[in-house]
Amino acid sequence: MAILERRDTGAIAHLHMNAPERLNALSDEMLAALQEQCDALMQDRTIRAVILSGEGKAFCAGHDLKQMTAARQNEDGGKAAFKDLFDRCARFMQSLNKLPQPVIAQVHGIATAAGCQLVATCDMAVAAEGTRFGVNGVNIGLFCSTPMVALSRNIPRKHAFEMLTTGQFIDANRAQELGLVNRVVPADQLESETRALAEQIASKLGAAVKIGKEAFYNQIDLPLAEAYSYTGDVMVENMLHRDTEEGIAAFLEKRDPDWDQG
Amino acid sequence: MAILERRDTGAIAHLHMNAPERLNALSDEMLAALQEQCDALMQDRTIRAVILSGEGKAFCAGHDLKQMTAARQNEDGGKAAFKDLFDRCARFMQSLNKLPQPVIAQVHGIATAAGCQLVATCDMAVAAEGTRFGVNGVNIGLFCSTPMVALSRNIPRKHAFEMLTTGQFIDANRAQELGLVNRVVPADQLESETRALAEQIASKLGAAVKIGKEAFYNQIDLPLAEAYSYTGDVMVENMLHRDTEEGIAAFLEKRDPDWDQG
Amino acid sequence: MAILERRDTGAIAHLHMNAPERLNALSDEMLAALQEQCDALMQDRTIRAVILSGEGKAFCAGHDLKQMTAARQNEDGGKAAFKDLFDRCARFMQSLNKLPQPVIAQVHGIATAAGCQLVATCDMAVAAEGTRFGVNGVNIGLFCSTPMVALSRNIPRKHAFEMLTTGQFIDANRAQELGLVNRVVPADQLESETRALAEQIASKLGAAVKIGKEAFYNQIDLPLAEAYSYTGDVMVENMLHRDTEEGIAAFLEKRDPDWDQG
Repeated sequence: MAILERRDTGAIAHLHMNAPERLNALSDEMLAALQEQCDALMQDRTIRAVILSGEGKAFCAGHDLKQMTAARQNEDGGKAAFKDLFDRCARFMQSLNKLPQPVIAQVHGIATAAGCQLVATCDMAVAAEGTRFGVNGVNIGLFCSTPMVALSRNIPRKHAFEMLTTGQFIDANRAQELGLVNRVVPADQLESETRALAEQIASKLGAAVKIGKEAFYNQIDLPLAEAYSYTGDVMVENMLHRDTEEGIAAFLEKRDPDWDQG
Repeated sequence: MAILERRDTGAIAHLHMNAPERLNALSDEMLAALQEQCDALMQDRTIRAVILSGEGKAFCAGHDLKQMTAARQNEDGGKAAFKDLFDRCARFMQSLNKLPQPVIAQVHGIATAAGCQLVATCDMAVAAEGTRFGVNGVNIGLFCSTPMVALSRNIPRKHAFEMLTTGQFIDANRAQELGLVNRVVPADQLESETRALAEQIASKLGAAVKIGKEAFYNQIDLPLAEAYSYTGDVMVENMLHRDTEEGIAAFLEKRDPDWDQG
Repeated sequence: MAILERRDTGAIAHLHMNAPERLNALSDEMLAALQEQCDALMQDRTIRAVILSGEGKAFCAGHDLKQMTAARQNEDGGKAAFKDLFDRCARFMQSLNKLPQPVIAQVHGIATAAGCQLVATCDMAVAAEGTRFGVNGVNIGLFCSTPMVALSRNIPRKHAFEMLTTGQFIDANRAQELGLVNRVVPADQLESETRALAEQIASKLGAAVKIGKEAFYNQIDLPLAEAYSYTGDVMVENMLHRDTEEGIAAFLEKRDPDWDQG
């Protein structure tokens, strides 16, 4: 049984973390498997949406503390290993945003520390009722500084600060109010609702979604004038795409577009 | 009948887009008329608030796709025309933020694509119950990359991403929850409620509002220390304004200020 | 009676503004007293959380307008004095974010202008039901440009713009919805609830909270890649802290940590 299963259905890739006994912790093996799939998806033009889920009672419980603790036996007390781990983790998180396909977290059970970061990093998230979210590293003396990067870009800062310094969990409904997840659904509809969202996105012109997702993250931190200058060029590129010409023509002629993407 | 009507009442300018048969699309003519009024208002010290509304069943449905499609007949397939269009549109959007007067969108019906961008760009927005908002270009293969610039600076990023990639509409109440509009009112009170808000702002010292609006957008993307250094200077400038001296004196003496602005 | 009282209980410092007759205005004396306590707390490793509250019917009503008006008699009309005041105020506000300890505003009555800025600046805020918040300088011709810096980094921009240009107050529940305060509690539980939050934070490893709070504000304005590069180094530093090693070991061994901090 692979630590990360990939099941494709049509234009949707479904990555399923499968280390339930470790609460799908982001171990060296899990990170490597996730990065490998990201690298493959980066080039894959047949996939237009990605779902990320976890097996067992948790979506993801963050880093693998046993593995990290073992590195303390190294000559440098683990320093180089820790740096390498956080580099690999940050690279993976940023890979999710660089993928041409939107990535939807399908979240259940608990999502803590780097697991909560993973939810915050995915482009969208659907959560089962009752899911709990926390950046609770502070409880063991390890402040969730890297998860904070993603969390503080998703929810208002005072609420992010409270979660980070108290270690308290919030439930799915609160996560939805704050902007950490898009939708909360009954547990028995989690898979079907997430899939419906993925299918909705996969039904769009993949080239347009790819152009738009890339532009989304490129523009979000730019000053306004630069953001407009940049996205103006993006719009021109999009307009000149053959399938976009067909999409607009079809709309004006009140018919369905005949796109090459199949 | 002008494509853009301007009706002034006291210190309030009301710009009314009047191309209902085209759902007030931002055609070349509409953009030119809007830019012309912005340029005039930029210098106008008698106006202290601006309302922007639309005639017919939509506030604004975005770009004029027929006009854009016609440009595909150009030698370069429309490339230069598209670039010029997005430049003019971005210039107009930024002009709204550069106006000394607060601009309030009075929104009804639908506001889609660049029409939703227009709502997001206005300093404030009042929406009629039932108004629907969308950045639905993705449905025809043209991702709303320029509307995204304004939208992603108004609402939490996961919700912006969902609207952009699904093309789904949100209603006025949801827009209010997310921060895209300030207030939702019954349709038959839309005009009076928007006017009341404009009059409230117009009753303030115009010089102070001008100083403050300019500072609002100048500081919002600055690092904290720079933002404080800059706004400290703005406060000094404001304090030295003669009408501000009078305003503070009146407050301390528990009387109404006798401002020059009339 | 000091203008600012400090009462410590265990690892919690409680700063209590005590100029009720002036609604705890940020006069020269109050700012000096607050800065002095900040400077002391900066070096104090026995304190792990700070509460800031006010005596009388207001938490804080902003700058001391009488004192500012008196400076108009200076040769330069007050210009140098105003600049110096806003510099001192900005320095104090930024000191709150630079403190190693989280600072919680315990807010009641009213918090206006620079008093509202103070709430927005504190890392967290607990408000009594019925508390009113406003950036109402515009009513007297002095736009709240410096309070805007903190406010516009706490709540969605259209709502910030409305508060600033209308001068209208919002109540505690609305402040909570918008992200300006973390929690709203009945007035008679304000002190106990604020203290409970402070105690919860003080029970964590102070070194980890210090590392995390510093990183929170350092990363929040960085581009994503830089934020991850920076916080990755912060995580390594945190991992190598002796008490963190103990905290993680205790967690893996399912026992309470034996931290040096006492």
